[in-house]
Amino acid sequence: MTRIEPCSAKAFELKKGQFLTVIDPEGQQVGDLVAYNRIDIREYISSGRSIDYASKLFLTKGDLLYSNRSNPMLDIVNDNVGRHDFTLTPCSKDTFRIIYGDDNPLPGCQGNLEKVLEPFGIIPDQIPIAFNIFMNVSVDASSGKIAVLPPMSRAGDKITFEAKMDLLIGLTACSAGQSNNFKFKPIDFEIY
Amino acid sequence: MTRIEPCSAKAFELKKGQFLTVIDPEGQQVGDLVAYNRIDIREYISSGRSIDYASKLFLTKGDLLYSNRSNPMLDIVNDNVGRHDFTLTPCSKDTFRIIYGDDNPLPGCQGNLEKVLEPFGIIPDQIPIAFNIFMNVSVDASSGKIAVLPPMSRAGDKITFEAKMDLLIGLTACSAGQSNNFKFKPIDFEIY
Repeated sequence: MTRIEPCSAKAFELKKGQFLTVIDPEGQQVGDLVAYNRIDIREYISSGRSIDYASKLFLTKGDLLYSNRSNPMLDIVNDNVGRHDFTLTPCSKDTFRIIYGDDNPLPGCQGNLEKVLEPFGIIPDQIPIAFNIFMNVSVDASSGKIAVLPPMSRAGDKITFEAKMDLLIGLTACSAGQSNNFKFKPIDFEIY
Repeated sequence: MTRIEPCSAKAFELKKGQFLTVIDPEGQQVGDLVAYNRIDIREYISSGRSIDYASKLFLTKGDLLYSNRSNPMLDIVNDNVGRHDFTLTPCSKDTFRIIYGDDNPLPGCQGNLEKVLEPFGIIPDQIPIAFNIFMNVSVDASSGKIAVLPPMSRAGDKITFEAKMDLLIGLTACSAGQSNNFKFKPIDFEIY
């Protein structure tokens, strides 16, 4: 079991056939996940393809996360929360400046992912819309208005993915106030 | 006025301060729009940033389309339809294979954009989630299930954008059956 400390990120390899379990140890904590083809980082996780092929915004057990080349990257094989977001980019200095009006913003998941992915040759522009694990975004069907609500995850809740190709993964313990019920907690993960 | 023939695409420059009007000449026709910073194509239109900053899925008059670097790219200054999609990637051979089960699929908006953007140095992996003009995607608020419905646009309906930086634009007349009420029509545009 590996811990991602509050407001930070880790990058790691996940081989085809391996399982990745992401755990919310304290409850109500989001983890942003991005994925790249290990041998060609220009192939990356695509919310647009995945939502299209699943015909739904909220992906859960039985759904696939596809790449921009329409190849399956991750298969959600277990999920005891069932509510994650796949429409928003990682929070960033700009998010905090534009949405929260912060003058001296934190690096956010974007900045934390940039730091851990840089050794793998990934530039900031290559960080896509993340699969925002445990992030609870409601949508009003008629206006399209979205609201970021506290995660539905309780202490010990988890989601498990099976890798469908060799992958590079970036994973955070998210640092956006609204997304985490205004308390920054760790995220744990294990690979087996 | 320039016409994009059914099931095709065009690429063109749009200078900061210029206006782009996209017209549906016959009604119920989608046009996928992608945008890049003219002098650095690694900066591209970002649905994830735009939805986050607007706090809504359905953008219309008064809303900004942001780049992945959180810079405003396009300002929607007029819109007499008010319903467009910003969650899905352009339709592609893979879309038609996976969703429609086609054995010999059309290139789709993805293939048509690849062709017209290639002379500008853009590779297929750099085609992001598009702003899918006139595309009518409904969302079920509780399950997140989406449905692609006929566009709400009637003949002559239009949307106008103001460029907030020098841009390269890719625009299609979409070739996905469901998105266009199963009839492939042209899309018109003008720049002024």
